[in-house]
Amino acid sequence: MPIYQAPVRDTLFVLNEVLGYERYTNLPGFSDASGDVLEAILAEGARLAENVILPTNRVGDMEGCVRHDDGSVTTPKGFKEAYRQYCEGGWMGLAAPVEHGGQGLPYAVHTAVAEYMVSANLALLMYPGLTQGAIAAILTHGTDEQKTAFVPKMVEGVWTGTMNLTEPHCGTDLGLLRTKAVPNGDGTYKISGQKIFISAGEHDMADNIVHLVLARIEGAPEGVKGISLFIVPKLKLDAAGNPGERNTLSCGSIEEKMGIHGNSTCVMNYDEAEGALLGEPNGGLRAMFTMMNEARLGVGLQGLSQSEVAYQNAVAYAKDRLQGRSLTGVKAPEKKADPIIVHPDIRRSLMTMRAFNEAGRAFTLWTALKSDVAHRSGDDSDRQAADDHMSLMTPIVKGVLTDKGFEHAVMAQQVFGGHGYIEEHGMSQFVRDARIAMIYEGANGIQALDLVGRKLGANGGRAVQAFFKEVGEFCEENRADEKMAPYTKALKKGLNDLQAATMWLMQNGMKNPDNAGAASTDFLHLFGLVALGYMWAQMAKTAQGKLADGANGSTSFYDNKLVTGRYFMERVMPETAAHLARLSSGAETMMALPAEAF
Amino acid sequence: MPIYQAPVRDTLFVLNEVLGYERYTNLPGFSDASGDVLEAILAEGARLAENVILPTNRVGDMEGCVRHDDGSVTTPKGFKEAYRQYCEGGWMGLAAPVEHGGQGLPYAVHTAVAEYMVSANLALLMYPGLTQGAIAAILTHGTDEQKTAFVPKMVEGVWTGTMNLTEPHCGTDLGLLRTKAVPNGDGTYKISGQKIFISAGEHDMADNIVHLVLARIEGAPEGVKGISLFIVPKLKLDAAGNPGERNTLSCGSIEEKMGIHGNSTCVMNYDEAEGALLGEPNGGLRAMFTMMNEARLGVGLQGLSQSEVAYQNAVAYAKDRLQGRSLTGVKAPEKKADPIIVHPDIRRSLMTMRAFNEAGRAFTLWTALKSDVAHRSGDDSDRQAADDHMSLMTPIVKGVLTDKGFEHAVMAQQVFGGHGYIEEHGMSQFVRDARIAMIYEGANGIQALDLVGRKLGANGGRAVQAFFKEVGEFCEENRADEKMAPYTKALKKGLNDLQAATMWLMQNGMKNPDNAGAASTDFLHLFGLVALGYMWAQMAKTAQGKLADGANGSTSFYDNKLVTGRYFMERVMPETAAHLARLSSGAETMMALPAEAF
Repeated sequence: MPIYQAPVRDTLFVLNEVLGYERYTNLPGFSDASGDVLEAILAEGARLAENVILPTNRVGDMEGCVRHDDGSVTTPKGFKEAYRQYCEGGWMGLAAPVEHGGQGLPYAVHTAVAEYMVSANLALLMYPGLTQGAIAAILTHGTDEQKTAFVPKMVEGVWTGTMNLTEPHCGTDLGLLRTKAVPNGDGTYKISGQKIFISAGEHDMADNIVHLVLARIEGAPEGVKGISLFIVPKLKLDAAGNPGERNTLSCGSIEEKMGIHGNSTCVMNYDEAEGALLGEPNGGLRAMFTMMNEARLGVGLQGLSQSEVAYQNAVAYAKDRLQGRSLTGVKAPEKKADPIIVHPDIRRSLMTMRAFNEAGRAFTLWTALKSDVAHRSGDDSDRQAADDHMSLMTPIVKGVLTDKGFEHAVMAQQVFGGHGYIEEHGMSQFVRDARIAMIYEGANGIQALDLVGRKLGANGGRAVQAFFKEVGEFCEENRADEKMAPYTKALKKGLNDLQAATMWLMQNGMKNPDNAGAASTDFLHLFGLVALGYMWAQMAKTAQGKLADGANGSTSFYDNKLVTGRYFMERVMPETAAHLARLSSGAETMMALPAEAF
Repeated sequence: MPIYQAPVRDTLFVLNEVLGYERYTNLPGFSDASGDVLEAILAEGARLAENVILPTNRVGDMEGCVRHDDGSVTTPKGFKEAYRQYCEGGWMGLAAPVEHGGQGLPYAVHTAVAEYMVSANLALLMYPGLTQGAIAAILTHGTDEQKTAFVPKMVEGVWTGTMNLTEPHCGTDLGLLRTKAVPNGDGTYKISGQKIFISAGEHDMADNIVHLVLARIEGAPEGVKGISLFIVPKLKLDAAGNPGERNTLSCGSIEEKMGIHGNSTCVMNYDEAEGALLGEPNGGLRAMFTMMNEARLGVGLQGLSQSEVAYQNAVAYAKDRLQGRSLTGVKAPEKKADPIIVHPDIRRSLMTMRAFNEAGRAFTLWTALKSDVAHRSGDDSDRQAADDHMSLMTPIVKGVLTDKGFEHAVMAQQVFGGHGYIEEHGMSQFVRDARIAMIYEGANGIQALDLVGRKLGANGGRAVQAFFKEVGEFCEENRADEKMAPYTKALKKGLNDLQAATMWLMQNGMKNPDNAGAASTDFLHLFGLVALGYMWAQMAKTAQGKLADGANGSTSFYDNKLVTGRYFMERVMPETAAHLARLSSGAETMMALPAEAF
């Protein structure tokens, strides 16, 4: 069985020491979760993840979900009980508003704990994850009646939520959507159509399932301008607000997938199911987009989570497995061979994962804090700057952390050699589970397009200029500090590459939009490297400050940060130049072959 | 169901037009398979792969192998029949010596056809692949009696072979091997021990299974110097040489694996099983190594094969799937959306795979031809040069083509979006199957160590110097040719990076062996890029020559080569600089953390 230990000390380092969490105590909710309380929350989340959720991971993969002839779905053994404990612990509504039954704590704290839970079982955490997304949508776009009717039950976790976008012929291109909504005349609609890839579409862990469904009201405009969002509960609510009559919707089948077997991925059939409009008519796409930032941040976190848990298991194996002798002389003379952690190429894998995980954690928490500012600050310009940051960084968090998360799950699997390829050790599962995060919630190619096509130029490039300024100033401020040189030099070089790439895009993307498309994925990853490099530079700065102050008995903790950060600069950052070179070659060759030539 | 069309025209281009196959007709076997005959062989191999083998691929994944209580194993539906047709077509012994029942044709032709077969079903082709490896071992190290007793039946395919190396506690480090061999006094031995991950260890497709087993003769030296190789048939041969009494060996279980479900991966238990020494006592490791070059070339080919078949399926989907509109204006106005092949980021994926596949094919065939020269030429210096090449390139073919093959299977899956993650389209299977090739036959980290630790410095660096000279001269010869500039400039830049990396290794690897280990994987991939870049430069040169000569009605074929090669130079070759930068940072930071810090 896989092991996992939640990196609580690292989370606290990032929140308290690097990101200055205490600075935010003026925002609602923060003073309820700082200092010892913050530590206690993280420790409690860690306990649940390690002791309750982790044991369900392998069994979830092996058993999967089972659909019965009546359309009902059974989740794997142990899911129900673990989910119950998750809900009872108040984790579902940790960051939800107090007036709707939540605890109103910072989204950053939710994000910190979510990492642990998702590391422990990605498939299981999708049920609450989708519910949290649906809660956010109802809170933002719902009427007071809708909020009262649905949110408290969902915060409690006794009802769960889903998001119904995809249809067989349309995923990315929602303009092609065919599911239709016919007004009943009483404010409700009859929803008819087929949706696919609906996560948590049907299962046995909740008393009701609140489906949010994109559909086209009869007579609405074609394309994305004619899409509306509906609340379509599995069981219609009776006069008292309790689940009553069964709605005419059902799970037609569940998908055989590469991974996340514990998630019930459904084909959902709506046959004149009764639904209510959520938000404005034809405003469905906008409604979707308002929840997308945090949903995508959540998926980015899945990439990080799988990288972290896979890394921890690779470390344990590398310390335990005896094979060969160190190139620099025997390290464990009492044993027949040295543990493989002595071999540089194994170290390369471990350090690569570690350096990414620690920076990725800082990157997601930084962005989650910005989300808190964007939603909770009373200061307009703070809110705007934070919102700019969120919008800009969302596709990067999602695209980069999931691409790398998968890559690192594969790397961790490789440390196990042949033992990684058999299912017994669970390394294959991490790879298979991590794979989905690159695809759903907008495939990573779409994230890259969102970045170059929408985010980069938004408001005259305000967000990206602010980021360049911040990173540039950091490098400048620390230029004279010799101890910081290994970090700031590499970061500055990366920033230069990123600025050159941005310039290239401005000059060539207008001329020929295919140039922007051709550059997009390389640009996304180049941006990601600079953002992660900036996290490392900040963490190094903090560590050096702590060491200079005596480090409070944690010398090795901070020393290790400095080493790991240097590794990132030496071994990961050089990739920025390759991204710049590739994207600067433009679209011409890429697009030169006629389609028939393929 | 996945599609597949064997790239026969491309194979012929590489063999005949680029590599000058006709120059080798002085070697035994070549004149029997050139011109029209070569074309006919490839076409027949293609037919078998497409029509007979491909249909077994999905079912093999879904059904897997089943072990029964008596230790017997049933292969998936259709495997037996497809294997029978493979054997009846003479494919098992295509390159085996005529005097042992083979056809004596070039190994390069075998390699060309093997690509098609393995694209069609990797798991199925492992059964003949292992048999061919065992045939080679017996032919090289066996007595005349052993050759006569085993080889003809194996060439016919009615008996198959296996290779038993790994034990639970030892994979890479064979010195730890515990399986023991006790002499019976009559020239035979009693073999006892447990072997794991034994591909094709037990199955229902052959009348007998010839296990080659590494074991330690009682009293032999410790470590790798005390390992011997044994022939241990499942059914002992009777006086007439027919399978008779059951040997005391059995399949204890079969592994649940991430992929290659159609391959029976067995735990094999030997309980005083009767075996005969193959080769010299304590010469087992050397015996293994002599077959390793071709076995590793075969695994490299698996990487290429999965990349190719995954690419073809991604192309078909990209032409068919309608989603969104081209950034440069509507391309299919009669449809509700454009096929996704119009989108640059989809093109990027397709072109990356295509550029790799075509160069990878040239690289494997080039190396296979060198194997023919090494084994068949009458000229000592030709043989030596070819053998140098084989030794040097083997870890690169294995490591680079399998790492990239997997990466491209993932890339092809991504083109399908959510449809790639469900099992229905078979894209997940390509990813899961391709994954094993990075691990077995020496994990890719071991390939990298083999390259920097053994191959690079062998014979005073003779092999690597010859390669540098050949590539350097090619660049020099074509320096004045402006049409070749896009290819030679990028290639020369890559060669410079590779030479700088080699120099760095020579200066720093001696000083501290960890520097060599820390550099190994980056060096392997840097070398691979230059080798593949060289293939592209040669293909471009050939294509330009053909176009200048009128191209015989194939203008677009050669034009497409030039575009694809340019793409490789623009978008893939820039990575050489990143590899150089990374490896030049040395081992210090990588090895700085104490093991307890992980």
